[in-house]
Amino acid sequence: MGKQAIGVVGLAVMGRNLALNIESRSHAVSVYNRSRAKTDELIAEFPDRKLVPAFTLEEFVDSLEKPRRILMMVKAGEPTDATIASLKPLLEKGDILIDGGNTPFTDTIRRNQELAKAGLHFIGTGVSGGEEGALKGPSIMPGGPRDAYDLVAPILTEIAAKAPDGEPCVAYMGPDGAGHFVKMVHNGIEYGDMQLIAESYAVLKQVVGLSNEELGKVYTEWNQGELDSYLIEITSKIFGKKDDETGKDLVDVILDRAAQKGTGKWTSQNALDLGAPLPLITEAVFARVLSSLKTQRVAASKVLEGPQARPLEGAKDAFIESVRRALYFSKVISYAQGFAQLRAASEEYNWDLDYGTIAKIFRAGCIIRARFLQKITDAYSKDKALANLLLDPYFRDIAKNYQAALREVVVAAVNAGVPVPAFASAIAYFDAYRSERLPANLVQAQRDFFGAHTFERIDKPGSFHAQWS
Amino acid sequence: MGKQAIGVVGLAVMGRNLALNIESRSHAVSVYNRSRAKTDELIAEFPDRKLVPAFTLEEFVDSLEKPRRILMMVKAGEPTDATIASLKPLLEKGDILIDGGNTPFTDTIRRNQELAKAGLHFIGTGVSGGEEGALKGPSIMPGGPRDAYDLVAPILTEIAAKAPDGEPCVAYMGPDGAGHFVKMVHNGIEYGDMQLIAESYAVLKQVVGLSNEELGKVYTEWNQGELDSYLIEITSKIFGKKDDETGKDLVDVILDRAAQKGTGKWTSQNALDLGAPLPLITEAVFARVLSSLKTQRVAASKVLEGPQARPLEGAKDAFIESVRRALYFSKVISYAQGFAQLRAASEEYNWDLDYGTIAKIFRAGCIIRARFLQKITDAYSKDKALANLLLDPYFRDIAKNYQAALREVVVAAVNAGVPVPAFASAIAYFDAYRSERLPANLVQAQRDFFGAHTFERIDKPGSFHAQWS
Repeated sequence: MGKQAIGVVGLAVMGRNLALNIESRSHAVSVYNRSRAKTDELIAEFPDRKLVPAFTLEEFVDSLEKPRRILMMVKAGEPTDATIASLKPLLEKGDILIDGGNTPFTDTIRRNQELAKAGLHFIGTGVSGGEEGALKGPSIMPGGPRDAYDLVAPILTEIAAKAPDGEPCVAYMGPDGAGHFVKMVHNGIEYGDMQLIAESYAVLKQVVGLSNEELGKVYTEWNQGELDSYLIEITSKIFGKKDDETGKDLVDVILDRAAQKGTGKWTSQNALDLGAPLPLITEAVFARVLSSLKTQRVAASKVLEGPQARPLEGAKDAFIESVRRALYFSKVISYAQGFAQLRAASEEYNWDLDYGTIAKIFRAGCIIRARFLQKITDAYSKDKALANLLLDPYFRDIAKNYQAALREVVVAAVNAGVPVPAFASAIAYFDAYRSERLPANLVQAQRDFFGAHTFERIDKPGSFHAQWS
Repeated sequence: MGKQAIGVVGLAVMGRNLALNIESRSHAVSVYNRSRAKTDELIAEFPDRKLVPAFTLEEFVDSLEKPRRILMMVKAGEPTDATIASLKPLLEKGDILIDGGNTPFTDTIRRNQELAKAGLHFIGTGVSGGEEGALKGPSIMPGGPRDAYDLVAPILTEIAAKAPDGEPCVAYMGPDGAGHFVKMVHNGIEYGDMQLIAESYAVLKQVVGLSNEELGKVYTEWNQGELDSYLIEITSKIFGKKDDETGKDLVDVILDRAAQKGTGKWTSQNALDLGAPLPLITEAVFARVLSSLKTQRVAASKVLEGPQARPLEGAKDAFIESVRRALYFSKVISYAQGFAQLRAASEEYNWDLDYGTIAKIFRAGCIIRARFLQKITDAYSKDKALANLLLDPYFRDIAKNYQAALREVVVAAVNAGVPVPAFASAIAYFDAYRSERLPANLVQAQRDFFGAHTFERIDKPGSFHAQWS
């Protein structure tokens, strides 16, 4: 019997769908799961597919061509370490372990080092696109040893999503933790996008007074233009969905407590470690946390008054267009922050990340897929060393033409008592980033006053301390 | 020769000043430093003080009454572990090690557990007030075993700052890491206070057009009222300080790059871990980081345009009063977030923190000392289970009467292109916290749409998944 080019360990929904995706590209795939039931189910459900079941790890490893290529789709953390420990004694020098789980990049760096000592290659890869993406084509963000990547690249390229121009949404990200890092920032950006859309919804509903039907139309229309993206598309559909039980619009039946699985939080915590300003995504993470305090909010709503509701002054349609511009410009600012974090990480961890390529592989398969990502790729093609996306001519024009709309929407929301933490954070970041002079001189004066922490001067280098009192 | 009731290890400025503070309360103090020079200097500088030098740890430990009380004032991290490792074999059951360094609370929890196994007591304590506070009376936040605290309480009480009503600014915070945790949040709050003052300065300077002399007068006046605090006091003095070299106002000569030592960052990272919304302090941390990107900002200022400067409409004095109210209300919101984080930590780590007492010991000695802290103590005296400071009647009145001013200042700053990330974050938090309904239902709909993450319903308990397409 012939050996398989690749095997998948872990047959929960993501592993199983990736195995089916690989198989659909004319590869036989070895499959293994710790508990036999999942393997049996998969084989029973797809008896005609070239899935080769193994019921021991020995059998599984033995069924693979050398160097072996093993895709692990197990839970991040302890289960991943356990799987590696079980596989390690069965593997030979040059074999390749691929971790496609939702793993913190620091774990991936550690495992890379540990396995390299045993002559094994370890690739940590982000996989975005959910269940459907795994089956039909996800966006794939692999990191690890370059030569090992080259040995798995043909298969990853086949199974990846294809961008509108036909290019596959996979590329080598960089050494050790680079792939999982990029996936983490992808998810942080996703938090930002979702919060911005939620704020546009709140403003359109509470300030303009749009119905769900009207909201559906607005997002459908927005999806035809520069906001064209998966998240805007599903938002437009959400407003048209009825609840089977009550017949009401489902969106109104859903409780307003946003959950999270931690990657947004990791992104913010890492940005704080790197010293990379990421206020918008962090506001989005805190907005989810605050939404979850539903009981407190309901109690507070009864005792903390806000402004009287005021009908929108001026034309509705013009204001809706302002909200669209505010959303697009805020999204640009959010990505500017996220890509600046990628740059800071690339320098800190010596990854040599290619920002244009990263934007490219986000164009299909993943949750943040959007037409506008092409603009980011274009910006970095023109200037690989671009310090911040806002400095690129295209984004500079957006800033110039759309900032008035963002200011208008923040002002309207603040006056109406509608919380827009991400919109407000966006304009604050923009105004701070373009400030030659910030009031941080006062902060330095205070620090030197109370703690003798010293300050720098504008007129010469060095550290100085003043006798303040 | 008699033995001393306490000894200090580590004679850098904080250790040395604390030793002198203790000695000034009629205690002889054993002193030890790893390199002998610092000990010799101290004794030479203060030959008449009851400082008993030791030049080996054996000699030092032998010079102390039992149970021994040893205050370690060494660098946080590795040096603290090294000092503990050197002392441990020389100590006996029941001896008490006190770490007064700037230690992450997680390290303190670990050391507590390790030393408890050897029958030793470990107290991790926050000490705030800088060099001068250490010498004359700091605010002290000790955590660890209660019975060990009782053995050091008399000395800590003597050396602590005294509040206006004469009460000493020290109290038992709680077990293991509670003291260092409270100190961390104190520092996070300090970041928030400083950023809010910096934003008030930017608005008064750039929107109102005040000179440094006028700014000095404004802050002097504010310090007479409800904003009365150490940071406002030093701010008022900063604007009057001339540069010795150029004769210019020193504040204008200081470079606008704010530095940091990490405790603000820790506070934000911990808030993210706890799921406690801390957006204002986090914006303050990111504002410092962004200020440090001076080169990028200068470049950006040349290509990213903002709004045309507009002269202030309406009366200057009325707007200055609005800035004062905006500052005070934002400060209230910042402390509401910080104290909610303390509550979340108390539940997570089983500390049973006493929030009223914490506010009490902040009233003198430390950097955030302020008249307004009494209001927090009062709020928790009335209702120990208060979920959020904004729900207390006094703070509710501030919210009711001052929110219009905060909205006015944010609107003016956004329209003028002056970045006010902390002010803007404050009003967004306030409006979100008092929202019975937030747009998080849309976020949950999106998550269920693309990832089958399920949602809750408003009309019955449980988790639900919809067929979206």
